Amino acid sequence: METFYDVAVIGGGIIGSSIAYYLAKEKVSTVVFDSGQIGSKTTSAAAGMLGAHSECDDLEVFYPFARRSQQSYSILEQELKELTGIDIRRTSGGIYKLAFNEKEKQDLGQLCGLKTVEWQDARYIKQMEPAITNEIVGAAYIEEDVHVLPQAVCRGFSQGAQMFGAAIHEYTQVNDIQKNGSTYLVKTQTGNFEVQHVIIASGVWSHSFFQSLGLENRIVPVKGECLSVWREGIRLQHTLFHEHCYIVPRNDGTLVIGATMVENDWSETPTIGGIGQMIAKAKTMLPAIKGMKAASFWAGLRPQTFDGKPYIGFHPEDDGILFATGHFRNGILLAPATGQMIRDLILQREVNENWVEAFKIDRKSHVLV
Amino acid sequence: METFYDVAVIGGGIIGSSIAYYLAKEKVSTVVFDSGQIGSKTTSAAAGMLGAHSECDDLEVFYPFARRSQQSYSILEQELKELTGIDIRRTSGGIYKLAFNEKEKQDLGQLCGLKTVEWQDARYIKQMEPAITNEIVGAAYIEEDVHVLPQAVCRGFSQGAQMFGAAIHEYTQVNDIQKNGSTYLVKTQTGNFEVQHVIIASGVWSHSFFQSLGLENRIVPVKGECLSVWREGIRLQHTLFHEHCYIVPRNDGTLVIGATMVENDWSETPTIGGIGQMIAKAKTMLPAIKGMKAASFWAGLRPQTFDGKPYIGFHPEDDGILFATGHFRNGILLAPATGQMIRDLILQREVNENWVEAFKIDRKSHVLV
Amino acid sequence: METFYDVAVIGGGIIGSSIAYYLAKEKVSTVVFDSGQIGSKTTSAAAGMLGAHSECDDLEVFYPFARRSQQSYSILEQELKELTGIDIRRTSGGIYKLAFNEKEKQDLGQLCGLKTVEWQDARYIKQMEPAITNEIVGAAYIEEDVHVLPQAVCRGFSQGAQMFGAAIHEYTQVNDIQKNGSTYLVKTQTGNFEVQHVIIASGVWSHSFFQSLGLENRIVPVKGECLSVWREGIRLQHTLFHEHCYIVPRNDGTLVIGATMVENDWSETPTIGGIGQMIAKAKTMLPAIKGMKAASFWAGLRPQTFDGKPYIGFHPEDDGILFATGHFRNGILLAPATGQMIRDLILQREVNENWVEAFKIDRKSHVLV
Amino acid sequence: METFYDVAVIGGGIIGSSIAYYLAKEKVSTVVFDSGQIGSKTTSAAAGMLGAHSECDDLEVFYPFARRSQQSYSILEQELKELTGIDIRRTSGGIYKLAFNEKEKQDLGQLCGLKTVEWQDARYIKQMEPAITNEIVGAAYIEEDVHVLPQAVCRGFSQGAQMFGAAIHEYTQVNDIQKNGSTYLVKTQTGNFEVQHVIIASGVWSHSFFQSLGLENRIVPVKGECLSVWREGIRLQHTLFHEHCYIVPRNDGTLVIGATMVENDWSETPTIGGIGQMIAKAKTMLPAIKGMKAASFWAGLRPQTFDGKPYIGFHPEDDGILFATGHFRNGILLAPATGQMIRDLILQREVNENWVEAFKIDRKSHVLV
Repeated sequence: METFYDVAVIGGGIIGSSIAYYLAKEKVSTVVFDSGQIGSKTTSAAAGMLGAHSECDDLEVFYPFARRSQQSYSILEQELKELTGIDIRRTSGGIYKLAFNEKEKQDLGQLCGLKTVEWQDARYIKQMEPAITNEIVGAAYIEEDVHVLPQAVCRGFSQGAQMFGAAIHEYTQVNDIQKNGSTYLVKTQTGNFEVQHVIIASGVWSHSFFQSLGLENRIVPVKGECLSVWREGIRLQHTLFHEHCYIVPRNDGTLVIGATMVENDWSETPTIGGIGQMIAKAKTMLPAIKGMKAASFWAGLRPQTFDGKPYIGFHPEDDGILFATGHFRNGILLAPATGQMIRDLILQREVNENWVEAFKIDRKSHVLV
Repeated sequence: METFYDVAVIGGGIIGSSIAYYLAKEKVSTVVFDSGQIGSKTTSAAAGMLGAHSECDDLEVFYPFARRSQQSYSILEQELKELTGIDIRRTSGGIYKLAFNEKEKQDLGQLCGLKTVEWQDARYIKQMEPAITNEIVGAAYIEEDVHVLPQAVCRGFSQGAQMFGAAIHEYTQVNDIQKNGSTYLVKTQTGNFEVQHVIIASGVWSHSFFQSLGLENRIVPVKGECLSVWREGIRLQHTLFHEHCYIVPRNDGTLVIGATMVENDWSETPTIGGIGQMIAKAKTMLPAIKGMKAASFWAGLRPQTFDGKPYIGFHPEDDGILFATGHFRNGILLAPATGQMIRDLILQREVNENWVEAFKIDRKSHVLV
Repeated sequence: METFYDVAVIGGGIIGSSIAYYLAKEKVSTVVFDSGQIGSKTTSAAAGMLGAHSECDDLEVFYPFARRSQQSYSILEQELKELTGIDIRRTSGGIYKLAFNEKEKQDLGQLCGLKTVEWQDARYIKQMEPAITNEIVGAAYIEEDVHVLPQAVCRGFSQGAQMFGAAIHEYTQVNDIQKNGSTYLVKTQTGNFEVQHVIIASGVWSHSFFQSLGLENRIVPVKGECLSVWREGIRLQHTLFHEHCYIVPRNDGTLVIGATMVENDWSETPTIGGIGQMIAKAKTMLPAIKGMKAASFWAGLRPQTFDGKPYIGFHPEDDGILFATGHFRNGILLAPATGQMIRDLILQREVNENWVEAFKIDRKSHVLV
Repeated sequence: METFYDVAVIGGGIIGSSIAYYLAKEKVSTVVFDSGQIGSKTTSAAAGMLGAHSECDDLEVFYPFARRSQQSYSILEQELKELTGIDIRRTSGGIYKLAFNEKEKQDLGQLCGLKTVEWQDARYIKQMEPAITNEIVGAAYIEEDVHVLPQAVCRGFSQGAQMFGAAIHEYTQVNDIQKNGSTYLVKTQTGNFEVQHVIIASGVWSHSFFQSLGLENRIVPVKGECLSVWREGIRLQHTLFHEHCYIVPRNDGTLVIGATMVENDWSETPTIGGIGQMIAKAKTMLPAIKGMKAASFWAGLRPQTFDGKPYIGFHPEDDGILFATGHFRNGILLAPATGQMIRDLILQREVNENWVEAFKIDRKSHVLV
């Protein structure tokens, strides 16, 4: 078998599926390869927060990109439901980024300067969320940092892409990518595919493709361990967030608690040390959580780059190869904008120059790891 | 411990939870007892079809009741989401009740006479659902027989009831109900409760309460075995229905296939014979289903009465005791209207006389089992 | 349906199944009723330690009973395998009951006086179990306190009983027990059964039968929350035990960590507070455990009596009714001896008088709860 | 990181783990890489039959090899239990290879000529297994074709290897193998390893290593779909086997039913078509199975070579590289003998010449696929 496509996407997580969706929608012939099931690795482990504000340190370049992506979700919700019948489970409610003391309150100052963010003091918050800890002085309230169900988004993108004509090959490992004149040969366990463009969107597993394609960029896994509980009588209307830990109220009656940060651990099962740590942290935000029933636990591997920003763009020396990986804690949030940016790069449409610069593969690492 | 409530509801499935919701909303002090977890038995096993038309043989009495209940769901969807944050996952799409030959087409004639039902021939249906079998001559299309996620509805009712002040006691077995002057003593493993009214809403397990309360009514379990599959590339937009078997497209990417009818089997696990039977039946409706990946399997016990209609109303000789059980295949569909009817009976509001007669406990069994 | 048996056993956990096994083996016609699946409640939640020494405070009466039961397991292992093909997974290894300081060492003094128990100091233990904490001063080593897989034992008893002619009715709730001249009528959801003797062996759920049979004895649930981990590289050859907490090395590659003690909680799901507590405790005994992968978590309800000893014997005023419940933390250990004692009481064989006195239903509660 | 070992084994299934075990036992420094968890793919999907006779068509070469491997298990059972505490769950009972008519009886003639095989007629078999179908004329009874629990064996090998000093790297993908003078560089996502010998033991996923090492051998996945049921009252003492389908009585109370043969399907989830097919087949052997409760279902990928025999031996042009893959339906059975043979090849001990010839990589394919 030898088959021809314009674009091969390697990786069927939320990033690869978004890319396939936006390309197929423009009638670009696209094939996706995933070594297992679509969306079953890092995507399925994410809580699904769209933290354009809450996860953002860089308001100049990263924030506008994140914000555009976040806003795309309100369109996608309707679009994917009509096209595929899949509900991405977007919630309302927003996030409280908590401050436990004056120092933390000050640290939230710049964030609270944004039009979409509002400082609320403890007394007011307690009225909204009676179960929250008494130990806070207040919180930055970000109404638009809502959340979605990541696997549903990924399945929606993937099935939508299929409806627009894309081919999805699950359980198909890509063994090699070979230059073949003006095209590329993607060698898989089920046969070879000839394509014009190859897009590496394999999250932490992109690492080996950088190597085999002659690049020294590193993608480091940062394992995140999570658990979920049944919230029962206690209603939580907002996501609580503090020091990288969050409690997310899903609309199926569970709370998701996450996530640890374990660098360079490639295993996808939580340790009981990590679970213990999350339980301890969650109790500081929502004391009543200790009496809630455990539902499940899991872990996922976030792909981290040297500067915490993703790689989105062309191979520096080979414009048939593109990368879209390294989204670290923000893969769900950034999936739509990443898919759109890759689509625009392939179709040679205009792309915001700041983003091209910030995410390019050969940007300099001033703070080298 | 001895505690006082106006109403005790025995059973926290979707029927009991609906009753508690509608009572608590009217400020009636209510307590619910469930021997396990809310909604974890028959409710959780249901596919969630709101088949006011597709499951209906009696257009005079049953259909208006079922239809009212079905229509309540469009209000409940919004109401429960705002109140509790829970999404009951109501879908669009409706049902195709399939005819494989002219005889079956004729049998659908009366149904197709309803304003809300439309006959469609095979050619047209194939355009809407290309994956459907070629063996049909057509189908009755019922746009409004959509579906919900039963456990989500039940949890929504239950948490909503709590917000209106009801008490929910899970893992609390009711051992005895004793007349105590003008009140009742509900004896449980965790203590006694004194109440004005007791409502038996325990599905198949109501049987023993009929006995201990001096009634000979029988509730027979009819086990239903189900499985679910990942629908992957093939989109199904409508529920398919034929001879008590259905294929329901959930909006999480699965299809639910159900359900067998095994009388007098109290076990809650499917046999492989039952699973084999469902697989065979589903293939006749949707041949491509045989290539789909299995997701899970389960079983539930439907409470059947002698005439297939529920018991909703007062104990014939004791107006402090009410029953709301025997909903057979239609518990999810009928839950809102049942909750409303019990509320109205307790609050001495007007109730449709036809329904009171049709569902009363001591109605005559002309076709005795 | 009305059916006749010599003995009805209510409860198909390890106690009820053991009773049925020993009775059926003597050709006593026996029927067992379980409201769900055999061995799926408290039995399935137990770690399976046979702690005749480690769980024993009373060396005069309780220890000989426990010891006899423990020794029965070595015969049962072979007997059940031959009869039913089921392997009860009895391990070797024994228990270290740890002392973290001189006070705890002294407290173990009496135990270490037994011929079957040996004090070992920390240095020696570290050689045997290099992964154990450095914080201990030593441990009581009890070679014979091995463990079994509780569900396997229960299934073995139950299938063995069937092979000897007993009838096992799963998913069959007993609603009432009525005196009927010289026999009893056991009323269930599937019909009535007439028997000579009724044995209540329903663990915590026995409580309601005491009440309905006119007795004031209380059975209080004490919930125990557990989790299991994959031990991976680190081999643990002995069970570690300290302050009611244990780490049990199963022979499938997992360690079982248990168990909290939550009084009067009837729910059968662990809270995350309980899980957090077990993780913290396990780390003090085996520090490396915090890096191990989580496997699963669960909870079970131990039936506790006022003095911590089981009720085994006749109803004080009705010698057709017997009880065998209240085994608290020791149900797995005591199952064989309990089954044998009930058999002997029914068959009017000789039974150790100390045990009859110690476990009788109407013994005095000097330390009333 | 760059680390030195004598041998790198790629693949931690039962074949790779056996190799590591036998090498480490001889003090060869060994490292194992698995892209996920040890034994979690094909190994975990196998029923564990040791079918030296029942799966064997070639009595001259294959049978003696299979038989040696089968016999090794009786030693391993004790050895692994003592060393690692893991019980491999070896059962007694043996296999009935069924004949439904005279033709099938004749086909079993040669097999029944072996000393270890005995023909039994239907009447006798019915006495041993009353639940078996009435449709058979008899069966070849093979007492020594017992079974083990494959994951337990694999974990036993792996932990045993660790105790003898081997390093096990889970979640470690091997990206490339490079010749490096007289050694090899194994490049993984977590760093490079320098070794004297590389052994490819990756089952179906070995395919890509053949390619990248310049060989044209093909390994084709043949998916097998299985399910398990609770056998409850009916005891089955022997494995039943007919036309590649088996019913295996595990000693935990379940029966395992397997397995379909789906060529070139890389997915690891069963389809409902496959499950339906297994249910239908199982009913022909054991009619009562249709009433048994479903326990679970799964699938695994068997690695098939052109002639159905494994590849065990050196790369034809590079004696630092060895292969041990392609064991098709017999990986569990052949694991010990494969591990021993690779050990002997590496240590330059004598190896049976017939086996070297039969399993060598560059043997001729007379019946080319």
